Amino acid sequence: MTFVEDAYAAIDWLAGYQERLREVPVLSPAKPGEVRAALPPSAPEEAEPFARVLEDLDRVVLPGVTHWQSPRFFAYFSTTGSSPGVLAELLIAGLNNVGILWRASPALQELEETTLDWLAQLLGLPSGLHGHIEEGASISTISALAAARQAKPGSRVVVCSEHAHSSVDRACKLLELELRKTPADEEFRLRPDALDLTDACAVVATVGTTSSTAVDPVAAIADACQPDGIWLHVDAAYAGSAMICPEFRWAFAGVDRADSVVVNPHKWLLVPQGCSALWTRHPEAFRDAFSVVPEYLRTKDDVVSFSEYGPELGRRFRALKLWAVLRCYGAEGLRARIRESVRLAELFESWVRDEPGWEIVAPREFSVVCFRRDASDEENEALMHRVNERGTIFLSHTKLDGRYVLRLAVGNDPTTEDDVRTAWDELREAA
Amino acid sequence: MTFVEDAYAAIDWLAGYQERLREVPVLSPAKPGEVRAALPPSAPEEAEPFARVLEDLDRVVLPGVTHWQSPRFFAYFSTTGSSPGVLAELLIAGLNNVGILWRASPALQELEETTLDWLAQLLGLPSGLHGHIEEGASISTISALAAARQAKPGSRVVVCSEHAHSSVDRACKLLELELRKTPADEEFRLRPDALDLTDACAVVATVGTTSSTAVDPVAAIADACQPDGIWLHVDAAYAGSAMICPEFRWAFAGVDRADSVVVNPHKWLLVPQGCSALWTRHPEAFRDAFSVVPEYLRTKDDVVSFSEYGPELGRRFRALKLWAVLRCYGAEGLRARIRESVRLAELFESWVRDEPGWEIVAPREFSVVCFRRDASDEENEALMHRVNERGTIFLSHTKLDGRYVLRLAVGNDPTTEDDVRTAWDELREAA
Repeated sequence: MTFVEDAYAAIDWLAGYQERLREVPVLSPAKPGEVRAALPPSAPEEAEPFARVLEDLDRVVLPGVTHWQSPRFFAYFSTTGSSPGVLAELLIAGLNNVGILWRASPALQELEETTLDWLAQLLGLPSGLHGHIEEGASISTISALAAARQAKPGSRVVVCSEHAHSSVDRACKLLELELRKTPADEEFRLRPDALDLTDACAVVATVGTTSSTAVDPVAAIADACQPDGIWLHVDAAYAGSAMICPEFRWAFAGVDRADSVVVNPHKWLLVPQGCSALWTRHPEAFRDAFSVVPEYLRTKDDVVSFSEYGPELGRRFRALKLWAVLRCYGAEGLRARIRESVRLAELFESWVRDEPGWEIVAPREFSVVCFRRDASDEENEALMHRVNERGTIFLSHTKLDGRYVLRLAVGNDPTTEDDVRTAWDELREAA
Repeated sequence: MTFVEDAYAAIDWLAGYQERLREVPVLSPAKPGEVRAALPPSAPEEAEPFARVLEDLDRVVLPGVTHWQSPRFFAYFSTTGSSPGVLAELLIAGLNNVGILWRASPALQELEETTLDWLAQLLGLPSGLHGHIEEGASISTISALAAARQAKPGSRVVVCSEHAHSSVDRACKLLELELRKTPADEEFRLRPDALDLTDACAVVATVGTTSSTAVDPVAAIADACQPDGIWLHVDAAYAGSAMICPEFRWAFAGVDRADSVVVNPHKWLLVPQGCSALWTRHPEAFRDAFSVVPEYLRTKDDVVSFSEYGPELGRRFRALKLWAVLRCYGAEGLRARIRESVRLAELFESWVRDEPGWEIVAPREFSVVCFRRDASDEENEALMHRVNERGTIFLSHTKLDGRYVLRLAVGNDPTTEDDVRTAWDELREAA
């Protein structure tokens, strides 16, 4: 078999997979160890044809896959690897550029620079920010807080809302920074009046929390940071993508004053996993925190390599997938997708609101609905498990004000009104 | 255009690219800013067909690409994204699983577990190690040293050879650990008699340094670490892959006693970029260093999610590419590739050795040859630039004993004896 024949077969497999997505249980029914047990104990000694890998994808792998690409995947944050994004990933692997420094692939670095500039414009960020791509928001947050720690030596406290993402906890642990959580208001937004910035090097404000997509009051937080030069990092990993639509831009009020901002195009902007956009107005602080240039990487090029701004030396050609998606959807196509997700979430919200025995438990700012049945936590939890086990849809939960809450996250490109209607039917039937 | 039509076009483009690789200048001749200047200042408002992306790959991107996949790329470490690896990357993006926790994709986690177990067996590592995949060795090193810091609180010194990779410096900077460099012997190996382990939490031993692929005496270092329970991390990012061949296994003597080991299948084992294998005998130390499980990720599954062992929450389905490569080459196919790289490097070494006016400046342990012309540093540097600018081949340099040294790294799958012969001809012609 040649590369081209194997590749066509892989493409056909993928196209077939996409067509079958409404027929498979969204949440994998696999028990722990089941996939492992179905695999041989050792690598084969002799080469096998690629076709066998495809067969085993069906036989061994798919039963253990939770189908993130299903139009009925409503858990966590729904995230689509769109067609141009998927094909760009193929090209990225085929070019297999390793961006250890500028000259190791000028196009890799300059396309990263350019696409992040394009995206900053679409999101209404100030011009002149320095942008680069990290693998995910966890690494972006580590990078931003490392820069903040560098910029304000001696201050070892990071302040965030009690609803900030766990990656902030994790980054602080790694960076040995103390994390001080600030109480949130009744709509799960950080309370600026409750901020204690003693010894703080950074504040993390969240635009779109993971639990309920609450939007912290960034402008008020920026006011509080300003007098002491405290680094303001904005985590807009999920909701940032919505800023391409002017009607959601209210949520970015004050973000123009942030020292760093993270938005994940791989969450709600149709780019496959592995594309977290990180902008800063202080690239030199990142460089101070990370740059180490050994002899074997010294060149005479008068360019700072992107590897100097984060923890990675080698970087994949991630910009290629962002570029392909931005071009093949166009700004207006992407806006239409964001708006459709929000419309579907709004619709679901209205059904829950109108149905006796159910309640909406947090404001729906974007495409995530937080709701529950008027019943005990145990009953809500059991309800969610029943629904997920049926396999038609998959949704996840959180806790808000100490109560068990179901979350329906819309965001996958192929999700239709029928799919959301199905989710609601499943929930009422299981209740 | 449908997905399938666009995808076939992308495949055809890639196949054509691979065929043209001996005709393009290996090192991109692009000047800083050239690629950026060829791109529009903003993202398009309207959708463009994917075919336009492919056109612009040729028109804008390729002139700025340094061709890592060229059979005449001999710089840094040569690294091939092989056909099964590239196609697996396509499938990874198409499935777009996000391994934030076990149930978010049981197959993702269990295939990662299984393939790392397969690879550990092939490399002759002890059984029972816990393995997981990180994006690159820089992240793996950060993770390992964070675990070491956690395991030995109060000790804040990391010890390595003066030839250890810059990612160790970078990790120590991030983790605020002091880095103590130990002198190397005349063959660029860490001198165990020169080890000072005062206040050390970890020692990083390198099996295959970046400059000259020297192998630190791991067993002697393990002896030194043992009395005080100092964490021994082995960086075998490049040379580890060679351990699939018994004849190179000498270089792993003592590695069975390491607390953690990193090997990058994306370097010399034909897996596309983004696959660094990290094993440890102390998974609990990694978990202590990284685990944070918020409510919205709590499940009743009795499994520890791989996201608890490193800095990332979401992980790509990286194991799929390792799986595809291990199967489609088979252990014997991979051994043949490693052996061929080494054979070609040996051949090149013999040509240099036999030619008056040239010298070999470090022992050739694997597939990298360190050499120079009997001339000044400036002349060697100028020679390298002349050769690289001609574009037929691309090689890089380092410094050893303060002298400018050229490096020829063999490792790309399609590289033939003719290609290595061409490299030698180019060098002699330019000299």
